[in-house]
Amino acid sequence: MTIYDWPTGPYPARVRIALAEKNLRSRVEFVSVNLWSGEHKKAEHLARNYSGTLPVLELDDRTFIGECTAITEYLDALDGTPTLTGTTPREKGVIHMMNKRAELELLDAISVYFHHATPGLGPDVETYQNAEWGFRQRDKALRGMHYFDGVLKTRPFVAGGEFSMADITVIGGLIFAGLVELRIPAECEALQAWWAKMQARPSVKNRVTMSEQADAVV
Amino acid sequence: MTIYDWPTGPYPARVRIALAEKNLRSRVEFVSVNLWSGEHKKAEHLARNYSGTLPVLELDDRTFIGECTAITEYLDALDGTPTLTGTTPREKGVIHMMNKRAELELLDAISVYFHHATPGLGPDVETYQNAEWGFRQRDKALRGMHYFDGVLKTRPFVAGGEFSMADITVIGGLIFAGLVELRIPAECEALQAWWAKMQARPSVKNRVTMSEQADAVV
Repeated sequence: MTIYDWPTGPYPARVRIALAEKNLRSRVEFVSVNLWSGEHKKAEHLARNYSGTLPVLELDDRTFIGECTAITEYLDALDGTPTLTGTTPREKGVIHMMNKRAELELLDAISVYFHHATPGLGPDVETYQNAEWGFRQRDKALRGMHYFDGVLKTRPFVAGGEFSMADITVIGGLIFAGLVELRIPAECEALQAWWAKMQARPSVKNRVTMSEQADAVV
Repeated sequence: MTIYDWPTGPYPARVRIALAEKNLRSRVEFVSVNLWSGEHKKAEHLARNYSGTLPVLELDDRTFIGECTAITEYLDALDGTPTLTGTTPREKGVIHMMNKRAELELLDAISVYFHHATPGLGPDVETYQNAEWGFRQRDKALRGMHYFDGVLKTRPFVAGGEFSMADITVIGGLIFAGLVELRIPAECEALQAWWAKMQARPSVKNRVTMSEQADAVV
């Protein structure tokens, strides 16, 4: 399998964490698509993924799978023993709901803020910006932090008693929040405590190798 | 099971179609949440779904499941024989990718257009609008129609050889397109032909009863 990504990106992080959780990292070859020079919006990458986003998984039969949730579903099903996407109907439903909510209310909102109300990837890549919309999405993400704090007051993980794809998506959100210097509000103690635990998790901590980290600095 | 929805809404349509495809309609009681009076944004509904969207499924144990993809995952898993969300890892991956792409590039884009660049649900509900963003999303949805036309030139259904959740999401998009009078471009012949077939499918054709249709007219 090949994964096209950018090592330090928050969306790529979701798939890297899933890979590590499933012990699949050694089966994957990574190919860098440089976000900062807008390679993800050029024809070569658009042929892999119409939406022009990262990461994209390429299977050995040359099928391209884009979208983190889709890639995670694929990876989690490979060994016949799903641990990230649920096994019972209720688990699947709740995990997918919380995963989507983490996108809508946190990760995607911060992404829109970054691309529209900050310099984002720079003027060559950000050819259209809508700052007003970007700032609204930032405020939505801050409300989202309070929401997930409330959730994590009642249970150890985002979708219940076990780590799941939904945790990974909130982790992606907080990685992005760090990049844009959006702090978790001090009063969100349950979210802070959960985030400290997640950052110590090997799949999260080791998602980027030291040499990738060095290469990714522009 | 209880489903909170608004019978003629494009997102509710996705779950109604999934219910019919899975022969589960008789096991569900519907409760109307009036979109046009903004009931979905009021405390009673926000307690069911933080994001304030429809539909929401309530299980007999009082668990609420929001988000169409999550509800579809739940319903499709109930009988142990998934027919909408895939069985092999590759099927799951491709269906989830195309499902998400149908949201991003079509359905959600049209929804943003409706809520931001048209009167939407009226001034009492649409308390903030960003018309420029709305029109951009309309244009994105029109490009999305061309993209799905290209896909449907190469295969009978959105995610491959079989009807799936991804078809349902494109159907939701075209239902919404109809409501906002966004026409499928004439040159998109494969999409037009697929849409004609989908509209004749019983799960799609009969998704709203005649009495619901009458009640939904405001």
